[in-house]
Amino acid sequence: MSDALSRLEAVIAERRSADPSTSYVAKLNARGVAKIAQKVGEEATETVIAALTGDRQELVGEAADLLFHLLVLLGAKDVALAEVLAELDRREGTSGIAEKAARKTD
Amino acid sequence: MSDALSRLEAVIAERRSADPSTSYVAKLNARGVAKIAQKVGEEATETVIAALTGDRQELVGEAADLLFHLLVLLGAKDVALAEVLAELDRREGTSGIAEKAARKTD
Amino acid sequence: MSDALSRLEAVIAERRSADPSTSYVAKLNARGVAKIAQKVGEEATETVIAALTGDRQELVGEAADLLFHLLVLLGAKDVALAEVLAELDRREGTSGIAEKAARKTD
Amino acid sequence: MSDALSRLEAVIAERRSADPSTSYVAKLNARGVAKIAQKVGEEATETVIAALTGDRQELVGEAADLLFHLLVLLGAKDVALAEVLAELDRREGTSGIAEKAARKTD
Repeated sequence: MSDALSRLEAVIAERRSADPSTSYVAKLNARGVAKIAQKVGEEATETVIAALTGDRQELVGEAADLLFHLLVLLGAKDVALAEVLAELDRREGTSGIAEKAARKTD
Repeated sequence: MSDALSRLEAVIAERRSADPSTSYVAKLNARGVAKIAQKVGEEATETVIAALTGDRQELVGEAADLLFHLLVLLGAKDVALAEVLAELDRREGTSGIAEKAARKTD
Repeated sequence: MSDALSRLEAVIAERRSADPSTSYVAKLNARGVAKIAQKVGEEATETVIAALTGDRQELVGEAADLLFHLLVLLGAKDVALAEVLAELDRREGTSGIAEKAARKTD
Repeated sequence: MSDALSRLEAVIAERRSADPSTSYVAKLNARGVAKIAQKVGEEATETVIAALTGDRQELVGEAADLLFHLLVLLGAKDVALAEVLAELDRREGTSGIAEKAARKTD
């Protein structure tokens, strides 16, 4: 299911070298990392506000915007989504072990 | 690969009803949606700063923190990651069709 | 010198009831508190980025934008700038006393 | 009234060279501009959330925190509050003239 993100990462990587006049991703990259980072900050603020005051569909839309721009930022910095997911796995792995240890007394 | 996110979503859902004294997810949920949203905002700021001034590993770590807290926020609002990914797919799908249409003249 | 802020607060209060088609403040207020709060979040992100990557004049401009939108937000919530400044004074007053107490052993 | 900000700016400038083990301002400065900028981003998020979900006193407190950390950031970048206020005055001055011009036909 969540391979949607990997596909999106590939699409973003492909469009980075597209024509900035027709591709939003290429345009953002042409404006530089600071501009992309600014978009991540803005979409996070909108996600926060949607969670607190918006309806369900607004939160879905803002979270999608945030994920999209986070992928553009990672791509611009040559960081693969896989590295971030591996980091999440590594942390959860640790927690998993802690949980198993805790369950041993069950 | 990115099923790491789906697994993480399941882990977060399971921990939501855990003991707040031993589970970070349960503790965050006990403090309410505003507190979770605040964490999303903070991690986004740290991601922005890591992208602009940090090294590669800092960006990986902050992006992981941001994704983690975004999943906690979505869970607290009963929004499934699948809905957000479907929204991203829908948008990309549209663009994909647009791209195919554009390529027909090739 | 910093009465510039008090004057700006008065100007904002006056414009709140102006015509949204000619006044930016009236337009923001017509869109609601969530929209004004979003602008505060965006300008803060831009201030952060200007401090880290911009030149001096960019930081001046973004900090001015942040202060302006913070005043619009406070006004929309019927909070006077004087209340915020009194809170800052109260805290500094406390710290001042703490400093004096610490200096007594000099 | 709003000279509270100018006084606070002077206090912050004085404390910048204090002992980081006893002064919060000195400690923040010792951690660098990125850390100070991060605090500005965090306090802005808390101000947004207080405006949307908090009571009046929470907004007063968070706005005070935001102003305080903005002054610490400006100080760390050698930007005087007066420059930011002059920029606000300049913009308002322009608008003021525009308003007067518009009123001439009244």
